Amino acid sequence: MKWLSEFVHSLGLKFGIYLDFGTKTCGGYPGSMEFLQLDAKTMAEWGVDYVKMDACYSDTKIQANGFAEFEHYLNATNRPIVFACSYPAYQAWRDEPGLNWTQLSENCNLWRMLDDVQDSWVSVRSIMKQYEANRKTLMPVSGPGHWNDLDMLLGGNFGLSLDETRVQFGMWAMHAAPLILSVDLAVMRPDVKKILQAEVVIRVNQDKLGLPSDLIMPDLGIKVWRKKLADFNQGWALAFVYLNDEAGHPTALVTSLNDLGIHGKDAAFKLIDAFTGEEVLTTTASDPFEVRINPSGIVMLVVQPL
Amino acid sequence: MKWLSEFVHSLGLKFGIYLDFGTKTCGGYPGSMEFLQLDAKTMAEWGVDYVKMDACYSDTKIQANGFAEFEHYLNATNRPIVFACSYPAYQAWRDEPGLNWTQLSENCNLWRMLDDVQDSWVSVRSIMKQYEANRKTLMPVSGPGHWNDLDMLLGGNFGLSLDETRVQFGMWAMHAAPLILSVDLAVMRPDVKKILQAEVVIRVNQDKLGLPSDLIMPDLGIKVWRKKLADFNQGWALAFVYLNDEAGHPTALVTSLNDLGIHGKDAAFKLIDAFTGEEVLTTTASDPFEVRINPSGIVMLVVQPL
Repeated sequence: MKWLSEFVHSLGLKFGIYLDFGTKTCGGYPGSMEFLQLDAKTMAEWGVDYVKMDACYSDTKIQANGFAEFEHYLNATNRPIVFACSYPAYQAWRDEPGLNWTQLSENCNLWRMLDDVQDSWVSVRSIMKQYEANRKTLMPVSGPGHWNDLDMLLGGNFGLSLDETRVQFGMWAMHAAPLILSVDLAVMRPDVKKILQAEVVIRVNQDKLGLPSDLIMPDLGIKVWRKKLADFNQGWALAFVYLNDEAGHPTALVTSLNDLGIHGKDAAFKLIDAFTGEEVLTTTASDPFEVRINPSGIVMLVVQPL
Repeated sequence: MKWLSEFVHSLGLKFGIYLDFGTKTCGGYPGSMEFLQLDAKTMAEWGVDYVKMDACYSDTKIQANGFAEFEHYLNATNRPIVFACSYPAYQAWRDEPGLNWTQLSENCNLWRMLDDVQDSWVSVRSIMKQYEANRKTLMPVSGPGHWNDLDMLLGGNFGLSLDETRVQFGMWAMHAAPLILSVDLAVMRPDVKKILQAEVVIRVNQDKLGLPSDLIMPDLGIKVWRKKLADFNQGWALAFVYLNDEAGHPTALVTSLNDLGIHGKDAAFKLIDAFTGEEVLTTTASDPFEVRINPSGIVMLVVQPL
């Protein structure tokens, strides 16, 4: 495994590994339950950069403290290792206020708490809806060093169109979710690669404020999310998402920065298309502008004060 | 409209128009009910090549004879006009044996009888499932000059991945369904264009025998359809479809032509990938070969006797 780890590093990639806190992994292989300290030490020896710990075959009551214990052993190795915790997905946090989010965010760098993503638009849409429905709980618990993980990015696989690939990548960036590709990099098509390497989208995701976007204008067919940034001269990112598969054609929204809660009398703002990096408009807060969005599509803009 | 018709023809395209047999169209515009003869004459004068007649705002009991009357008027113009009939979609043909398929196929060149397609994989899959469930009724009524219309092709729009685009195009070709693009030709991406211009797929669709494919091997996760051809030295087309969105990876099937009901002791067969046009293998009826299919994907082969 150490050889494999070095090979992965030689490709400019990070080396992640999957463990399970329980007596067995979900696939039935041996789990870490009785070997937390040994497994943490082995991760460091192998040069692992990222540990995802699942929670199959474990009692939900002991998970929070058990994961904390594993984090303690990871830290004791002195190797910087990202710790991804899956135990919230096993807890009934949507129905009862039992999950200690403070403890979670102290022990884990990211966590899975919604359904596993599958390679289909139905699945991506379902996760977006679940996040939206639970955003009052999830937004405040996310911040630098501890993130809501909406699961892997599918772009470059089989089930998403280019528009759907943009929606997932853009919204994960808006929600400040980890951008982890689950794809065969060797066969990725250029148009998908271009989407997943969109520099402005990545900057929005990686903004040092670490704030997730908030839903504004939830009542139109088009949903608009807004994220405050430190970058882009303390600007904002806006995502306009249109999830109507039945329309068959793009839709247009005429709005203004004022409408979207961005103010500044006499100030000018530059609008940048986050997927192309191109400046599309210079405007004031009150001037109307039009946004044209594909069905199952997204328009993502950065608003930069001038 | 005559000017528009000539402009469309100058682009190398056919000019189709939408009418409704009822008192109004589904969108509420004036229908043809009282103007069948006049409308047929006008279509010919305008240089229309294709009339799609819908059936909103009309009594289901008078539709079959009413569409027959319109066909009579179209034929009386002496202009060759393809007549697409939507009235089967308004009849309860799945539940009761009331629809006269013989009359339908004498009067109409194609007909819609399943749900309207929308720009999503969910919709395409649903139509494929409906066709499959009703194939014992639908296969025999299709033949040269009178076809089951599974609705428009979506490739080049927003909601289908490349694999899903291939599935729709390939299966429509296998089912001997009309291949009518519903897309903005001016902005079609090269990879989509390549799929929709796959010459072998189109030849399979246009084969002069006009036979729809039949489902063989319905009990595997992979569905295999087989279509008898006159073309390709009286060969066959085979489609292997894998509709598992949750697998996340391609699957492989090891089979032989014998397994697929294609026999011929000592004979050799050439296998051609219908989407690339490339010869992939020369084999005998009994030799096993492997087919590797993407999730939400298709492999379409032509089997040509040598």
